[in-house]
Amino acid sequence: MRMVEIIAAKRDGRPLTTAEIEWVVKHYTAGDIPDYQMAALAMAIVLRGMDDRETADLTIAMARSGDMLDLHDIAPLTVDKHSTGGVGDKTTLVVAPLVAAVGLPVAKMSGRGLGFSGGTIDKLESIPGFRTSLSTEEFRRAVHEPGLVVAAQSGDLAPADKKLYALRDVTATVESIPLIAASVMSKKLASGADCIVLDVKYGRGAFMQTLDDARQLARTMVAIGHHAGRKVTAVLSSMQQPLGFAIGNALEVREAIAALRGSGPPDLVELSLVLGSELVRMAGLRDSVDAARLLLREALQSGAAWEKFRAMVVNQGGDPTVIDEPERLPTAPVQVAFPAPRSGFITAIDGQALGMVVNGLGGGRSRKEDTIDHAVGLVLHAKVGDHVTAGEPLLTVHAAHQADVDQIAERIRFAYTIHDKPPPLLPLVEDIIREI
Amino acid sequence: MRMVEIIAAKRDGRPLTTAEIEWVVKHYTAGDIPDYQMAALAMAIVLRGMDDRETADLTIAMARSGDMLDLHDIAPLTVDKHSTGGVGDKTTLVVAPLVAAVGLPVAKMSGRGLGFSGGTIDKLESIPGFRTSLSTEEFRRAVHEPGLVVAAQSGDLAPADKKLYALRDVTATVESIPLIAASVMSKKLASGADCIVLDVKYGRGAFMQTLDDARQLARTMVAIGHHAGRKVTAVLSSMQQPLGFAIGNALEVREAIAALRGSGPPDLVELSLVLGSELVRMAGLRDSVDAARLLLREALQSGAAWEKFRAMVVNQGGDPTVIDEPERLPTAPVQVAFPAPRSGFITAIDGQALGMVVNGLGGGRSRKEDTIDHAVGLVLHAKVGDHVTAGEPLLTVHAAHQADVDQIAERIRFAYTIHDKPPPLLPLVEDIIREI
Repeated sequence: MRMVEIIAAKRDGRPLTTAEIEWVVKHYTAGDIPDYQMAALAMAIVLRGMDDRETADLTIAMARSGDMLDLHDIAPLTVDKHSTGGVGDKTTLVVAPLVAAVGLPVAKMSGRGLGFSGGTIDKLESIPGFRTSLSTEEFRRAVHEPGLVVAAQSGDLAPADKKLYALRDVTATVESIPLIAASVMSKKLASGADCIVLDVKYGRGAFMQTLDDARQLARTMVAIGHHAGRKVTAVLSSMQQPLGFAIGNALEVREAIAALRGSGPPDLVELSLVLGSELVRMAGLRDSVDAARLLLREALQSGAAWEKFRAMVVNQGGDPTVIDEPERLPTAPVQVAFPAPRSGFITAIDGQALGMVVNGLGGGRSRKEDTIDHAVGLVLHAKVGDHVTAGEPLLTVHAAHQADVDQIAERIRFAYTIHDKPPPLLPLVEDIIREI
Repeated sequence: MRMVEIIAAKRDGRPLTTAEIEWVVKHYTAGDIPDYQMAALAMAIVLRGMDDRETADLTIAMARSGDMLDLHDIAPLTVDKHSTGGVGDKTTLVVAPLVAAVGLPVAKMSGRGLGFSGGTIDKLESIPGFRTSLSTEEFRRAVHEPGLVVAAQSGDLAPADKKLYALRDVTATVESIPLIAASVMSKKLASGADCIVLDVKYGRGAFMQTLDDARQLARTMVAIGHHAGRKVTAVLSSMQQPLGFAIGNALEVREAIAALRGSGPPDLVELSLVLGSELVRMAGLRDSVDAARLLLREALQSGAAWEKFRAMVVNQGGDPTVIDEPERLPTAPVQVAFPAPRSGFITAIDGQALGMVVNGLGGGRSRKEDTIDHAVGLVLHAKVGDHVTAGEPLLTVHAAHQADVDQIAERIRFAYTIHDKPPPLLPLVEDIIREI
């Protein structure tokens, strides 16, 4: 095969064969295909697209480019959850212990935050002592007992994706639904879970800005799962505002703990139940999502989910006394209430803008090498649809220095839209895609 | 400026600004922009296109990336001619001395052949002693006296184009009319001529396979000339068959000499007069192409064009006694007539296929490093529209070894289409584009 002919085929809109895709991934990973040829192919894919079969072939080839975790000797069935990323999204911290508590082993590898979106690994590391870098052996042992593990991605998981993603980032070829889907799913397939629930977010605070794009991405990822012989469901959830009230690593862990103890924000609890129910149904623990939801509600109310979270923290070296008393989590020295600039109903909260504010406070990364301050962030006091009065607190800024607070006032003000009339309320979950 | 944003703009179909294009060409030439980013941009251009202003900006920026020849201290006005390349196309060897003979200084830099298409430089080098590598000083002196020079491209002419062309070749980004036009015209602009006639060929033996593509390319190149302040005319000529009867370096020189001495094949002479007349008109020597043609006919019949060709050969070190007796040009030891496989009218001759046959005989290059045999080639005995009788000679193969001849019989047979009825005759010159 010749790379230039494969590029030309895609340039002219021809679907690539399975053999061509396998050949490209193999030789690109090995370094035989130079970056400039891969960049041309990636741009041709961005502009010409790939069908479901091609996308699945690419995903499977990238998954197989490194280690393929097989956990079947440890558990007959494991589950995984992935979110396309949203501001204030601490759902993994709730869903994972929730489904583990009803007997579904959770084997989750997660990423760090970059840009305006936080990462589960960063959030967990705000718990003193918590280790996210596990050996493969430690990871496998944790799947067995306590049946729940959330760890940073290991080195040789889908190296083809790692290499391609870095190239796409500098060649303006990120914005392609087949390539995004293949990137996400290659890592999921390599991580070994049998049932995967995907939280595909759309809106201002999400990677997919429109519902149409989000639906297309969801559909593509479910199709990949189908081709690869895994059970995959995608939940389309709105990011018209941040999820819950807290944005920032330790603040989000605190909110997740509250949810596990029965006093979480309604949207976080609801989304966690929806995502968890899909896993319970796919795993065959219950026949319907209604029955699954009932099972999970019990696990939440009985404290079983909280106990499972606590067991994970202990197992991964975290200090349980800190999560038992969450006020002992890292706390910012400066806490300043930000007043509502006018009275009225909140009609929109720009999650992306607030995510960037937290980033600016030191709570996120602009570059991979940046270190982060786990304590800083924002706690909202009102959400979309709520009425606020001018001068009363809209949110509280948690900062390292007063000077940081002064710099962000205008950006916060611009993130809110306040009108005289209440907005139409959008559903949190727009759709669930189980089949294609 | 950031390259990734420029790539994204073109990916999304936005025209690039003049400043963006200049920045890209400058930094790509300097090596600051890596090939993988340029490859992604090139593919985005292939699929999204560029408008006339962008294409002109790219062309001018690439022309300025190296030396810009200015010949105005030598001659108030110089002319140049370029062909997009066709099989059997020895027109430069006729047109250049023809217009030089009526007083238009010709300053032509030319390329070597690659693939199925021959190059003027290779043809001229079949004349013993002829030097095509001239210093800039020698080139300029020849423009003054004898007022006619055809030389290989010098090293630092449009280096940006050289670098980009090499990248396009391995990234399947050759097939783009704006990029092809910019590549051709950047070298023409850098070569310094004031009036340029372009022979844009279309059909099986040409780079542009359809009339529509050829017309679009012609239109784009005329527009570039307009933007760059040069006079440019494009002639659309058919390549439904090879031009003239000879294909192969020395054989084509022989045919060009015949044309300059008044006994050339009608299509070669006609095309040379059409192209030459456009130069005479653009240069202002005559007001109309009819008057220009009359002037050139006289230069041909008087022997003035032949004398100018001879003066160029002498000036560039070639042996004039060899061109005076063209049978002394390199001659292949094996000459075998190939019989017509059936009787009937020739309805098509696949120039590309015959070009590849000559290549296979050793008369062309598959890779830049290949050396070539100037003597080998084909001489056709009949052309499209002619009636042939089974068993009578269709063409004569000029080869180095009998074994070479045996290998090509089938490919020659497939290059000809012979039917019972005569084909409709297409005009040699389809259109002339002078304004846009």
